Amino acid sequence: MPAQQRADARRNYARILAVAEEEVAAHGVDASLEQIARTAGVGSATVRRHFPTRRALLEAVSRKRIEALCLRAHELADNADNAGKAGKGDSRSALLEWLSDVVAYSASARGLAPVLAPEGAGPGSEQVNSCSALLEESAGPLLRRAARDGAVATSVTFADLMTLIAGIALATEHLADPAAEADRLFRLAVAGLSPRS
Amino acid sequence: MPAQQRADARRNYARILAVAEEEVAAHGVDASLEQIARTAGVGSATVRRHFPTRRALLEAVSRKRIEALCLRAHELADNADNAGKAGKGDSRSALLEWLSDVVAYSASARGLAPVLAPEGAGPGSEQVNSCSALLEESAGPLLRRAARDGAVATSVTFADLMTLIAGIALATEHLADPAAEADRLFRLAVAGLSPRS
Repeated sequence: MPAQQRADARRNYARILAVAEEEVAAHGVDASLEQIARTAGVGSATVRRHFPTRRALLEAVSRKRIEALCLRAHELADNADNAGKAGKGDSRSALLEWLSDVVAYSASARGLAPVLAPEGAGPGSEQVNSCSALLEESAGPLLRRAARDGAVATSVTFADLMTLIAGIALATEHLADPAAEADRLFRLAVAGLSPRS
Repeated sequence: MPAQQRADARRNYARILAVAEEEVAAHGVDASLEQIARTAGVGSATVRRHFPTRRALLEAVSRKRIEALCLRAHELADNADNAGKAGKGDSRSALLEWLSDVVAYSASARGLAPVLAPEGAGPGSEQVNSCSALLEESAGPLLRRAARDGAVATSVTFADLMTLIAGIALATEHLADPAAEADRLFRLAVAGLSPRS
């Protein structure tokens, strides 16, 4: 591709992404690809070339927040490492603190919830750099450590946690105070609705 | 309204509802009101007159299933009453059995999840015959009995349970086996992700 065309494509991408961020903030997962194309002043085909699926668009829009959550997971893992060496490790708190951050982000940033968990089988589900893969790579160690310490059942997968949080965010987004309701439901799920077996 | 007009309105309503059931089964909460109007051969204004909001449409489509869940709640409450008199009551099992039915229905019937829980504040949220109000009237006693017996924390509301189940259904509907995944996540939430405090 000639230099001029590449420069045009980059500008288009940046403009579409900026418009998409506003549309997703306003309409969540229902953001209209056609409206994004109109506002960005490009054709629908151009939008689809950059973002072949709705999920691809939501992943691009959510990327900065996902990276912040990954960074936070690394910090918490490092802290837990150091505390562990000092005999004061608490792998349960580290995991729950990170998950609470995911809940808070999901409740405040529309469009984030659907990219937390891996997609079902299908094209793109194995994409290595997907948001869900980045999260699992960064925060998987927090879950494994908590499971090793008996704070979480070993059958609980990282995908389980992300799917549950995504559901909580989706079910509370139309309520008066989504962040408070999402936090409340997440705490219920952590404690168990009816924990004795 | 003259008799002929009333008969026309009833026929329109029945036709729109039948089309809406198919559209919601195919597209869930994303069912298009415009498509429903086109397929039913009526104007969009007619659809909106019968169903002023998307939720009103989903409530009408889900009504039979909601009534079946209400009936099931009454049966379980009656059984628990009788078992209680015989000294063999298990209020926890009765509640969990009903909730599992709600999970299974929500995972199999698209469009049901969004009407399980009360809407946030707003027009129509106080509607007495809403699906969520019918469910709470029928199954509220199962929750109160379980709470009285210490199987559920007294702070857990009926709306909490329905919102959590709605979220689980929404987050699993695109997976390969929604019913199995929804059931799995619900069991995790019942047992608690990390139940010790």
